[in-house]
Amino acid sequence: MSSAGIPQQPTPERFLGAINAYQQTEAVKAAVELEIFTAIGEGNTTVAAIAKRCKASERGVRTLCDFLTIHGFLTKDGAQYGLAPDAAVFLNKTSPAYLGGAIEFLLILRVRESHARMTDAVRQGGSALGEGNLVAENPDWVKFAEAMMPLMVMPAQIMASELRKGGEAHKVLDIAAGHGIYGIFVAKQNPAAQIYACDWKNVLAVAEKNAKKMGVGDRHHLIPGSAFDVDFGGGYDLALITNFLHHFNPATCTTFMKKVHAALVPGGRAAVVEFVPNPDRVSPPTAAAFSMMMLATTPDGDAYTFAELEKMLKDAGFSRVEMAEAPLGVGRMVVAYR
Amino acid sequence: MSSAGIPQQPTPERFLGAINAYQQTEAVKAAVELEIFTAIGEGNTTVAAIAKRCKASERGVRTLCDFLTIHGFLTKDGAQYGLAPDAAVFLNKTSPAYLGGAIEFLLILRVRESHARMTDAVRQGGSALGEGNLVAENPDWVKFAEAMMPLMVMPAQIMASELRKGGEAHKVLDIAAGHGIYGIFVAKQNPAAQIYACDWKNVLAVAEKNAKKMGVGDRHHLIPGSAFDVDFGGGYDLALITNFLHHFNPATCTTFMKKVHAALVPGGRAAVVEFVPNPDRVSPPTAAAFSMMMLATTPDGDAYTFAELEKMLKDAGFSRVEMAEAPLGVGRMVVAYR
Repeated sequence: MSSAGIPQQPTPERFLGAINAYQQTEAVKAAVELEIFTAIGEGNTTVAAIAKRCKASERGVRTLCDFLTIHGFLTKDGAQYGLAPDAAVFLNKTSPAYLGGAIEFLLILRVRESHARMTDAVRQGGSALGEGNLVAENPDWVKFAEAMMPLMVMPAQIMASELRKGGEAHKVLDIAAGHGIYGIFVAKQNPAAQIYACDWKNVLAVAEKNAKKMGVGDRHHLIPGSAFDVDFGGGYDLALITNFLHHFNPATCTTFMKKVHAALVPGGRAAVVEFVPNPDRVSPPTAAAFSMMMLATTPDGDAYTFAELEKMLKDAGFSRVEMAEAPLGVGRMVVAYR
Repeated sequence: MSSAGIPQQPTPERFLGAINAYQQTEAVKAAVELEIFTAIGEGNTTVAAIAKRCKASERGVRTLCDFLTIHGFLTKDGAQYGLAPDAAVFLNKTSPAYLGGAIEFLLILRVRESHARMTDAVRQGGSALGEGNLVAENPDWVKFAEAMMPLMVMPAQIMASELRKGGEAHKVLDIAAGHGIYGIFVAKQNPAAQIYACDWKNVLAVAEKNAKKMGVGDRHHLIPGSAFDVDFGGGYDLALITNFLHHFNPATCTTFMKKVHAALVPGGRAAVVEFVPNPDRVSPPTAAAFSMMMLATTPDGDAYTFAELEKMLKDAGFSRVEMAEAPLGVGRMVVAYR
């Protein structure tokens, strides 16, 4: 609401907006649950038509749709609502890029509860709920694997194609595979590649299902268990460590990457996907803000800068560390060479 | 993050930003509770100094301050944090305009819980928690009176001075007085005015205390009870109905304003303060979005447009209805003449 360059009177609106920001969370969640975006995409553009399609009250639909318009998800022209471009692509269930289901992971109870105790987290420097979801076979990670896959398709495709430029991979370790989509796209781009996906057993069931569905099931192998404890075997020319290191402190990351280093062939690559803030730690906003998610939900994880990742990886024995220029959505890929 | 005029690729960032918006709520709440803004205002500008002053961990403080910088509450220059102008005025406890205490009302449990059931509220067209806080002697309104007063000082001053332009008030009815500040400023600007403040008995204790503190205690009288049920008496030349009508449906508002009309002398004025959205109901954003607060927390309240307020007031018998040009913060004043 402020315009750059125009001096503003101090107003409490920023404070009130932030304090009430949870309303956006609840409104978008409600809209996904009620299929408001899908209803509008189908041509139900008035309050009455949307309410009928979504089995909701007209008063509730009117208020919700106005709120979604204020926050840029919908357009409003007279009494007609429409989908803003982002909502049409990502929030209409009939869109191939639909990712409304991600709320099933992003808003799980434990994440909300850990944030509700943010004052305690800031005091003690880590999640007020202790180990959080970093315990064995935690069902939250099955939800992650199922709910977050659509959000990862685009980054996984970019990653596989960037990695392909550096040479064909043959034996690929996919750590904390989750939905398995990162390894699956590497397999699709490297016809000779065998993927070894490591995650908790309950989570790997999701990766296995996805690998079969996407036609690479015969080259997709499972290593169930904790990535810290299981035997990876060796001879890998590529290891994928995607959205994993941010859960742990730098010493733990370094120790872990030594284990990965040992599993790689000489010249092998470790490809790390992370939210990577700039050295100022306040830009770009989404990557930098991810640090708060880790403060609230993990004992000592973080969003690491490139310099921090480079140090961990060099301390783990890697000879060269580079950040790929192409962003993977809000994430970045850092490649370390054995 | 988007710039007007530059065509954007669809991105999931708006969706992810809204789903995670509750982090802003928790972060600003934590910062107020830990007195981060006050600490910085006192000259503690590094992570180490702020952490020491706020008795918190350096890791937590660093992450929180970066997050607050991303969201415009702080500035960051190298390793030094500073207060953005709004934060300096409104969130530093030593500032006379400090209003961080408003979180005690804005984030009361019942409000959060009612929003957590927004999907149900949209389905049924009203709060999933029923009557919410509209029951007799609800202690939430004591919290309101205590916590929200600082936020109302500026609007109350503007209101009193706008009303003064229309003539001196002598007998003033202050409905749902809460903190009492609206009536108190009218008393201060009209030396002959007697204020009759109506609210629940437990809430009026706050108004009474404020009236004494601000030097108008001898002209401040109490009418304890439900504004719908108590006898106001008569002969008022001014009635203040501030932030009250939005809790009720139009029929209830009309019935209530008939009672106010009957208590006024001919030519007397009813001054209604409300969030008043434009006819499009999606602007201005803060006033329009207030409709969502009423959907979530009341059975059938709303943020009413001027046309809707005008109809209620005319149906209640008022002859002329005008909206004052000067905004009262995010609110507006509508004056109805008997």
